[in-house]
Amino acid sequence: MVFVLRLNHRIFRDKRISTHCALVARAFGAEKVFYSGERDKKLEESVKKTANKWGGGFGIEYVRNWKSFVEGFPGKKIHLTMYGIPLPEKIREIRKEKNILVIVGGEKVPSEVYKLSDWNVSITLQPHSEVAALAVFLHEYFQGKEFRKKFKNAKVSVVPQERGKKVLDLGE
Amino acid sequence: MVFVLRLNHRIFRDKRISTHCALVARAFGAEKVFYSGERDKKLEESVKKTANKWGGGFGIEYVRNWKSFVEGFPGKKIHLTMYGIPLPEKIREIRKEKNILVIVGGEKVPSEVYKLSDWNVSITLQPHSEVAALAVFLHEYFQGKEFRKKFKNAKVSVVPQERGKKVLDLGE
Repeated sequence: MVFVLRLNHRIFRDKRISTHCALVARAFGAEKVFYSGERDKKLEESVKKTANKWGGGFGIEYVRNWKSFVEGFPGKKIHLTMYGIPLPEKIREIRKEKNILVIVGGEKVPSEVYKLSDWNVSITLQPHSEVAALAVFLHEYFQGKEFRKKFKNAKVSVVPQERGKKVLDLGE
Repeated sequence: MVFVLRLNHRIFRDKRISTHCALVARAFGAEKVFYSGERDKKLEESVKKTANKWGGGFGIEYVRNWKSFVEGFPGKKIHLTMYGIPLPEKIREIRKEKNILVIVGGEKVPSEVYKLSDWNVSITLQPHSEVAALAVFLHEYFQGKEFRKKFKNAKVSVVPQERGKKVLDLGE
């Protein structure tokens, strides 16, 4: 099972980035996203609403003390950072682990995160986006399985089209 | 050459998402990002500042009329949308094209975008993030080449570490 921890959420500044992180976590196969920083009921509601409509059992939970949460996590911890070892050098090793916590920061990640993580890995050594880093990490970890993933109890589902949109209403 | 068009930028709401799209475009190997919607000098400056510091010739340019821009683009156009054909079914065909424009929307994409694009492709059929969709698309298009990409004239560069950060100052 794959879990994601989004560190240091700030309600005003990170609203959309944290929502995107959570939705990427869900779409690419994680079970649940945890977040620390400022508690944000709107973020939680928005993610739950999407998960409810599009199916699957994805959850979101606030973590008051990220440090004790990471220390107590029963599995390997992978911190995504542009300063870490390139993912291709570590992905085979990481894939052997079945319970992982993927930690995504943003600006000003405390140095303890680097120490508490089993792997610090980079998705390129360039500045870009925690949303992108998480997506590419999960894409590689699951080897593209997200393209075939089914979501149980979905109320709607997309039928792929060459042009335009087709959405099936699956009812309640 | 790969170009990216980010549609319908709104200064207040999309500031960080559009910045992340631009930085992902750069880090994952695109030449330049174009954007339509509201002109945003701060977005342009922020992207140029990062490109200048971290190297490479990446550019950003505002497009007043996205429709005539797309129509006049001398190459194939790929629109990333959760309603399109799954990327794995199209990527081999798309990789044959050397000049492409990758179009990323957001909410409320005009229906003309679907018609003007040569391919409408989905990065999963789930709602998540244009930042993530762009990253996974470029990762697949370039087959992971972003991990080995070098940026010319960089003023700083990261030396990957198992723990912590190491940044080389390359001077002016």
